[in-house]
Amino acid sequence: MDALVIHAPGDLRVEQIDTPDLLPHQLQVRVRAGGICGSDLHYFQHGGFGTVRIKEPMVLGHEVAGSIEDVGAAAQGFAVGERIAISPSRPCGLCRFCQLGQQNHCLDMRYYGSAMRMPHVQGAFRQRIVCETSQAHKLADHVSDGEGSMAEPLSVALHAVNRAGPLLGKRVLVTGCGPIGALVVIAARRAGATQIVVTDMASQPLRAAMKVGADQAINIVEQPDALGAFSADKGQFDVHFEASGNARALLSGFDVLRPRGVLMLVGLGGDITLPMNTIVAKEFDVRGAFRFHAEFAVAVELLNKRLVDVKPLISATLPYRDAGRAFALAADRSQAMKVLLSFD
Amino acid sequence: MDALVIHAPGDLRVEQIDTPDLLPHQLQVRVRAGGICGSDLHYFQHGGFGTVRIKEPMVLGHEVAGSIEDVGAAAQGFAVGERIAISPSRPCGLCRFCQLGQQNHCLDMRYYGSAMRMPHVQGAFRQRIVCETSQAHKLADHVSDGEGSMAEPLSVALHAVNRAGPLLGKRVLVTGCGPIGALVVIAARRAGATQIVVTDMASQPLRAAMKVGADQAINIVEQPDALGAFSADKGQFDVHFEASGNARALLSGFDVLRPRGVLMLVGLGGDITLPMNTIVAKEFDVRGAFRFHAEFAVAVELLNKRLVDVKPLISATLPYRDAGRAFALAADRSQAMKVLLSFD
Amino acid sequence: MDALVIHAPGDLRVEQIDTPDLLPHQLQVRVRAGGICGSDLHYFQHGGFGTVRIKEPMVLGHEVAGSIEDVGAAAQGFAVGERIAISPSRPCGLCRFCQLGQQNHCLDMRYYGSAMRMPHVQGAFRQRIVCETSQAHKLADHVSDGEGSMAEPLSVALHAVNRAGPLLGKRVLVTGCGPIGALVVIAARRAGATQIVVTDMASQPLRAAMKVGADQAINIVEQPDALGAFSADKGQFDVHFEASGNARALLSGFDVLRPRGVLMLVGLGGDITLPMNTIVAKEFDVRGAFRFHAEFAVAVELLNKRLVDVKPLISATLPYRDAGRAFALAADRSQAMKVLLSFD
Amino acid sequence: MDALVIHAPGDLRVEQIDTPDLLPHQLQVRVRAGGICGSDLHYFQHGGFGTVRIKEPMVLGHEVAGSIEDVGAAAQGFAVGERIAISPSRPCGLCRFCQLGQQNHCLDMRYYGSAMRMPHVQGAFRQRIVCETSQAHKLADHVSDGEGSMAEPLSVALHAVNRAGPLLGKRVLVTGCGPIGALVVIAARRAGATQIVVTDMASQPLRAAMKVGADQAINIVEQPDALGAFSADKGQFDVHFEASGNARALLSGFDVLRPRGVLMLVGLGGDITLPMNTIVAKEFDVRGAFRFHAEFAVAVELLNKRLVDVKPLISATLPYRDAGRAFALAADRSQAMKVLLSFD
Repeated sequence: MDALVIHAPGDLRVEQIDTPDLLPHQLQVRVRAGGICGSDLHYFQHGGFGTVRIKEPMVLGHEVAGSIEDVGAAAQGFAVGERIAISPSRPCGLCRFCQLGQQNHCLDMRYYGSAMRMPHVQGAFRQRIVCETSQAHKLADHVSDGEGSMAEPLSVALHAVNRAGPLLGKRVLVTGCGPIGALVVIAARRAGATQIVVTDMASQPLRAAMKVGADQAINIVEQPDALGAFSADKGQFDVHFEASGNARALLSGFDVLRPRGVLMLVGLGGDITLPMNTIVAKEFDVRGAFRFHAEFAVAVELLNKRLVDVKPLISATLPYRDAGRAFALAADRSQAMKVLLSFD
Repeated sequence: MDALVIHAPGDLRVEQIDTPDLLPHQLQVRVRAGGICGSDLHYFQHGGFGTVRIKEPMVLGHEVAGSIEDVGAAAQGFAVGERIAISPSRPCGLCRFCQLGQQNHCLDMRYYGSAMRMPHVQGAFRQRIVCETSQAHKLADHVSDGEGSMAEPLSVALHAVNRAGPLLGKRVLVTGCGPIGALVVIAARRAGATQIVVTDMASQPLRAAMKVGADQAINIVEQPDALGAFSADKGQFDVHFEASGNARALLSGFDVLRPRGVLMLVGLGGDITLPMNTIVAKEFDVRGAFRFHAEFAVAVELLNKRLVDVKPLISATLPYRDAGRAFALAADRSQAMKVLLSFD
Repeated sequence: MDALVIHAPGDLRVEQIDTPDLLPHQLQVRVRAGGICGSDLHYFQHGGFGTVRIKEPMVLGHEVAGSIEDVGAAAQGFAVGERIAISPSRPCGLCRFCQLGQQNHCLDMRYYGSAMRMPHVQGAFRQRIVCETSQAHKLADHVSDGEGSMAEPLSVALHAVNRAGPLLGKRVLVTGCGPIGALVVIAARRAGATQIVVTDMASQPLRAAMKVGADQAINIVEQPDALGAFSADKGQFDVHFEASGNARALLSGFDVLRPRGVLMLVGLGGDITLPMNTIVAKEFDVRGAFRFHAEFAVAVELLNKRLVDVKPLISATLPYRDAGRAFALAADRSQAMKVLLSFD
Repeated sequence: MDALVIHAPGDLRVEQIDTPDLLPHQLQVRVRAGGICGSDLHYFQHGGFGTVRIKEPMVLGHEVAGSIEDVGAAAQGFAVGERIAISPSRPCGLCRFCQLGQQNHCLDMRYYGSAMRMPHVQGAFRQRIVCETSQAHKLADHVSDGEGSMAEPLSVALHAVNRAGPLLGKRVLVTGCGPIGALVVIAARRAGATQIVVTDMASQPLRAAMKVGADQAINIVEQPDALGAFSADKGQFDVHFEASGNARALLSGFDVLRPRGVLMLVGLGGDITLPMNTIVAKEFDVRGAFRFHAEFAVAVELLNKRLVDVKPLISATLPYRDAGRAFALAADRSQAMKVLLSFD
């Protein structure tokens, strides 16, 4: 079968790889759709991020959905033909963090398409994959494969929202409206936020964020002072989700986030210089959010029950053989939010 | 009466000021002891900190205890001769934050000896002061005036511990063992922390921290790698209290603080460059702690019931007329923890 | 002007009362719509509930909306003609609980139409009322007076949901589908609950609950064992909202609420005998929810932004002169959810 | 070797049982001391409690300490001769609750000396036992075997305190001063409670509670109205630990527990009739606490570091051959707190 294998920055190849053996407790899945994530882009453009670097050829991809082709002899509760979203996360279940219910910090995590460990964990941009039943989440008929593949980034957004604490009736700022920022808008609204303001440097992502429920969009290039309207009484926002990785965006919240407000850092970023005096004097609560665990099942349930709608964020679906074009489109913020690959 | 008035950096004078009028609901207090705080030192040495600057002469001091000399006609529950610690904090009671129980963020706060607002709030390094009954907390006979004056910095430490969440059975790192760091050791132990490791660049503060209950002291100049012993399994500490204001000290916790660990920022600091990737990937919770509110009453109760002992942290008590010498001593970390002024 | 005054059980009269004077910081409001609450019914049918009894004639009503007729000289931010929902709650702002942000426990609470204190606090079923600006919340044009009057019971539901902790992705059981139970369904869905099962002894309330978002309705008379489907693995629900005041309904959750689950008690009830062994062994968290505070503003904002829809719960609107018929209808669970009075 | 086997109410026999085989990852332990728990007494006096009944002969006992006699070939970190406290709790590690870090709700729990499942889990009142290394916690030299055996009930108290939320500066009521109530006093003080009031119907337990740190003891037979002193402002206690299993004791807290106060139910009890109106109107938080998990390691660490002292609660140590006398003494609240068996 075919797979998308990254060899070096810019060197992404369609290659033949073997179909894996199906163990008794596993499922064999015909992958149908896969979303291109920011980390896929980083591997493609730069060979990795931070200290995580490609050291051997690796199949990319961790946002996929498909249909079950074969069910292992001991795998219960699944049938051939059922459509599923696949969680890319396989924690060990036994380590200190798994036993605390903090599986995203597993000491022996295997996560599709990640070069964090050596050998790398091969990814899911391939025609066929085997997975554990614990990774498989059934999709309702009305949820397309493409929407199903978005369960993964939606899980990331849901995890960030869970980490932020209850949002019912809260006022929320989201800086950075890429796919994750926009999904945070969806998740925050679903969790009951009453006011959601988004900022970005580009218009297309802001429009997308408005489509999925934001109340107000601010283009910080065109309206550099617009956030100032929220600075009364030491700040009007209860929670600031920072999803741009940009220092200026992060700091733009300091005047408008209320004392005791929560600054959620979503998605990775580099070194940023912070005014500690403000964090102290306003008693901010700066929290990281990394991946997810229980949220994957919630994401699929929200999609299945039409409690969220991610369709407005799907910009395009391209065949996997056009991966180069798809990755270029995914990197172009003026045109695209989420770009999907089709493995049909 | 006499007061210690700061006019400019280095220019601290003993001056005569008027005894204030006693309003019906107030107490007149003969100040007996006052502790020199880091912020007093900043006013003395640099004329302020960050954007807070002395713009007019200001009586310094906010850590004081004394005895009641006169009781306003409408002031209930207090009698002449009673000894009290005085909270320097007078929130308005009416603003958005007071009505949320977050009085330390009061929009109209009056805090003794602070140049944050103009005109400045005059401080408590004086022989006589009037205060509201809500600021007055009775001291048990066995608690000295000097110990009573430490209710204020102890409140700061208690507030930081409260902000950190429950500590029973937790492992705690404290970087920076000045008076606040050492009081955090006391407060963390009182709250049930089972392991407390402290670091500093100087030996005297480390010795003091051990005296008040730390389990292990690390001089990071002499033992730069000693913290590495706590890095197993992504980090062994549950909470890191950063009380040094130093970037290296702050970052020293990143390898030894466990995922989902709490990094409490105690005391002010300048700009610090942080690796956001680590905060995200380990899902740290970086929280500021600023002043206190309900903790002042708790501090006095802990002192009164002998549930904490702050005496080992009192390095010296000097007459207020020797303020210059006292301030110099307070600034010398090789010799002094808390230095008190006597107003007898 | 006219008011609805309760004198004794069954003795509810339309009476002329004086229009109150408008103080400078107050608003005078022409009441348009008022909802009949369970406590109004209790006063009407039984003269009160528990130890709370009518001891003097009292205007009933605390769920009202109307339009501003006059604005006090010192009242800012409001104009004649604006339509508002009025919060019936007037905490003192000064007591221990107000200063903790727990205003619903105010030691000197004034709550419209309540016989809890003597003299009673007169209610809002009247043509004109004066209120503080802090009680007034502006309604969007598309929100009818009737919907506006439902801000109050919606606030009760929101408060219960807030007390229950974050609901995003949670499974929820609601026993009792009167107006409060149905509003809890709305609030729980708004807060992100993924599964909401409701039970009642009557069909009409169950139908109403389904209309506002419940996933499954169980008539416990017709399907006494249906909840058993949720008992696997010690229980499948994360939160049980008990809104029936009925012992059997409360206990029906014990087998299906998961260990560490939250049992929210919403609305008053009498003595109930509980198996403490189960609460202990499953470590339930049984919490009371009483009235609201900040939730009123949130309720109005949710209505204004169409983030909730309470219209399906309004069964009928009758003129206040037909109060007898309206109260009879409100008491008939086979016919009515919320019954409104019109004061036009 | 000898073991204490319960056959029926009142029929407790010293019997010879086989020494179990040591598996590679296990430890063989020479049991030295064992504490008699309330549940042991229930099995002895009544054959069980609630629906839990002895259906086959069962070795009693789950509070033990001893010294390692043999170390399995694959068991790491332990050596022959080391003294340990043994946690009686062996969760499966794999079920839904174990993977949530809520191991005390394990769907496949094995707990020493418990008739909850069939076949019963045999207990630890025996001369030799094998256990997993995860159950073994090393004791410091200064901690006696008897104190070590108290790690188990101390864990129960610590778990209750953890469930109650942070106690630093809090006011605490403990009703019922048996061993668990008294250990709650110790744990609450260790966690920073500033005021601890205890009640009981007997004088001996109250004296014991005072010895381990309670501030005030109330004999509710002799001083039935004394708690009334704490009813001001809707109640002065922040947390009420109910450790008597008695309805009157539970209800005695309703007037003195503040709104939003926590009522912790510690230890099992039967059916109790509660005034739901009060739980609702005061928004109590009634929480069960059942056994423990991570707290066992904390208990041993607190003992090892002398951060708690349980010695005042050990009333007597008798040879296991005098079990009948020991159980009679343990049941006599006028004489005994914790009674230990020696297995030397």
